[in-house]
Amino acid sequence: MGQAAQAPSGTRDFLADELRRRKSAIAAVSDVFERYGFDPLETPAFERLDVVTGKYGEEAASLLFKILRRGVHETSGQADLALRYDHTVPLARVIGTHGSKLPSPFKRYAIGPVWRADRPQEGRFREFVQCDVDTVGSHSPLADAEIVYAVAHALEALGIADFRFLVNSREALRGLLEVYGVEAALGDGVLATLDKLDKVGTEAVVAELAERGVSAATAESMIADIAADSPDRIRAKLEANPRGKQGLAEVDRLLELTSGLQGRTAFAPRMVRGLDYYTGAIWEVEAAGYPGAVAAGGRYDRLVAALGGPDVPAVGGSVGIERILAMREPAPEDEPGLDVALTVLDGGEADLMRLAHELRRSGLRVGTYLGSSSKLARQLKWANDRNARLAVIRGAGEQAAGEMAVRDMASGEQQRVPDADAVAGIQRLLRG
Amino acid sequence: MGQAAQAPSGTRDFLADELRRRKSAIAAVSDVFERYGFDPLETPAFERLDVVTGKYGEEAASLLFKILRRGVHETSGQADLALRYDHTVPLARVIGTHGSKLPSPFKRYAIGPVWRADRPQEGRFREFVQCDVDTVGSHSPLADAEIVYAVAHALEALGIADFRFLVNSREALRGLLEVYGVEAALGDGVLATLDKLDKVGTEAVVAELAERGVSAATAESMIADIAADSPDRIRAKLEANPRGKQGLAEVDRLLELTSGLQGRTAFAPRMVRGLDYYTGAIWEVEAAGYPGAVAAGGRYDRLVAALGGPDVPAVGGSVGIERILAMREPAPEDEPGLDVALTVLDGGEADLMRLAHELRRSGLRVGTYLGSSSKLARQLKWANDRNARLAVIRGAGEQAAGEMAVRDMASGEQQRVPDADAVAGIQRLLRG
Repeated sequence: MGQAAQAPSGTRDFLADELRRRKSAIAAVSDVFERYGFDPLETPAFERLDVVTGKYGEEAASLLFKILRRGVHETSGQADLALRYDHTVPLARVIGTHGSKLPSPFKRYAIGPVWRADRPQEGRFREFVQCDVDTVGSHSPLADAEIVYAVAHALEALGIADFRFLVNSREALRGLLEVYGVEAALGDGVLATLDKLDKVGTEAVVAELAERGVSAATAESMIADIAADSPDRIRAKLEANPRGKQGLAEVDRLLELTSGLQGRTAFAPRMVRGLDYYTGAIWEVEAAGYPGAVAAGGRYDRLVAALGGPDVPAVGGSVGIERILAMREPAPEDEPGLDVALTVLDGGEADLMRLAHELRRSGLRVGTYLGSSSKLARQLKWANDRNARLAVIRGAGEQAAGEMAVRDMASGEQQRVPDADAVAGIQRLLRG
Repeated sequence: MGQAAQAPSGTRDFLADELRRRKSAIAAVSDVFERYGFDPLETPAFERLDVVTGKYGEEAASLLFKILRRGVHETSGQADLALRYDHTVPLARVIGTHGSKLPSPFKRYAIGPVWRADRPQEGRFREFVQCDVDTVGSHSPLADAEIVYAVAHALEALGIADFRFLVNSREALRGLLEVYGVEAALGDGVLATLDKLDKVGTEAVVAELAERGVSAATAESMIADIAADSPDRIRAKLEANPRGKQGLAEVDRLLELTSGLQGRTAFAPRMVRGLDYYTGAIWEVEAAGYPGAVAAGGRYDRLVAALGGPDVPAVGGSVGIERILAMREPAPEDEPGLDVALTVLDGGEADLMRLAHELRRSGLRVGTYLGSSSKLARQLKWANDRNARLAVIRGAGEQAAGEMAVRDMASGEQQRVPDADAVAGIQRLLRG
């Protein structure tokens, strides 16, 4: 088997235990989003290439998996479809396609695979699940708050209790640049550099800012303000700047509306996040024990139009479900054993299959021995390998007596159960 | 919006109601398969092109969606990956890749999309869900019976009660040809023609068989035997032929082992199904009110090896879930309304968001008004549109009194609930 074919580079086969773990995590998050009144949405695995062209940056575009035209066109080597790269472009497309049929605001969640031809590496895959929740068509700050609550609730459902929302806003960041006299044209680059503060430290950031044309004095003063333990100093400065003031108001409104999260949201003046398309309050979630952000989001009022949809406001968030799953310990419920293992001895197979059917109809997980051994010991080993709680033994003697022996696989104890009472008797033994 | 982009040809956007219907059907079938001790398996959306090349017939190969090589190779126009065409080739590949890690026999189900570049038409899609259940590594006829029971049980879970398994076997069909002196070399073509009997009638089949080199007398006698109301005559003839006898024994063993299905399985001598890879008992399921087969399967002991996996016996079935979903009536549970709609009046939004959070934590589906109107009537219309059972009204008067009005949306009746008792009070009202 050394040369057996593998799954394509950067993809995974999900075998039972891991797949159950993934499914139960996805179900937990879906259940939370449903309680918030978000509706599920599933778009095709691919979109027309012309729909996605120009919608992603240059780097992202190079990561698209493109699908060859079919039939006689195949030899042309041209592509006309691309695998889903994210859930956002399809969302914008769906709003255009189905606009009038959708409720307004349109609150939807999408949990499903996306494909990116990234270089495969530890923890980075070419097929992975993204978990997005968005409200399209509402300017209300309550929509922002609802997303934050929903994401917090989803994290709790995934077993993450110790987390913190770092809240900032696009306008607060723009105000920050104005306060320190950084030219607007330099803004995006300067913010991208500031974003590295925690990773590379003050000195490296000051050096990079100098390259970008920001003096060391300005850089140091700005860093001192945004990295201070208390945000009071930077707050005072932002209050004095119109953009900064508006940004702070967005942040404070979101903090107020999410006060039920009891201190797990806070203004984070140094949290820089995707100036490229966010337009209002933005946030990122840190969780104890997890590297990087476990969730992120914000308001992006102009994105749907930019992606080809109508001009509607929007706010959303994304839960880093792959990152969370990678850190999660397997739980026993992810590996359900059999409730009942039926051994097969000395004929009577049709009766056994009927019994299996009845037990399954009563809701139990039941396996039937399908191997070639007629030895009980061998069959009990199979039952044990399948983590069976009970094994049913029905040899010639039991069949003649119209009964079966039911063995508790943990204790080894056996009890006789009459054929006529089989389902009820086995259910009783399972209840212990 | 007339020129809004659409989903690619032959694919569908699943909006909330339909998606919930699909998800609940898939969950019902998965739940059944789990009870039979089948484990879920999920393989990537694409396989390496060299893994699938030569594994499908020529026609199928022309329906593969192929993915362009990435990066600098993209301009070459060459493909190196193909979207999943079925769940069977990936199953064979997984057994090769993970062999030693898999239980033996390996019982798995796979429910997920496959992609085929078929010409889109009414009811035929380029992206659709296949629902397969297979046992690999067991020669036992109990494995065949278990698949039949599992499929029957899955059909019941999908709400189909009136169905019938038509059972035949590859050897019985081979025996049939021998009984009538049809040359082995003509066999596949002759059986393919016989398979059209119900569609085109005796006369057309006799004509086509003549073209294939079967005399009219032979054809008419064969058709009279296999189309007879009772299979007794053909049984007698097959019993007299060694292959026919073995085939009948396979059929009868499966009928005996599935006797718990109470007459919903029967020998069907004219049921011809995929001689190409089946090796033992084969079956198809007819259901009242459904065109064509709603499920099909059989034993295919040599296929896994032919597809590049190890040489292991296998038996499986497939439930036509798309066909079944297309006929299914929407059920009310597919369109859950809100349990509680919170209107937003005169401030107090942070308290409302907190209340919403608490109600959701208690398991309810809760929406908050996110529109721009401050008019109660407008907000109640929203609650009504969202099929809310209760609406919470908390204007300035209620806020001052530390309470809220809770309106039953069906009757219009309103009750006062104190803020301190909100969650319990609302839960009480929902219980009616």
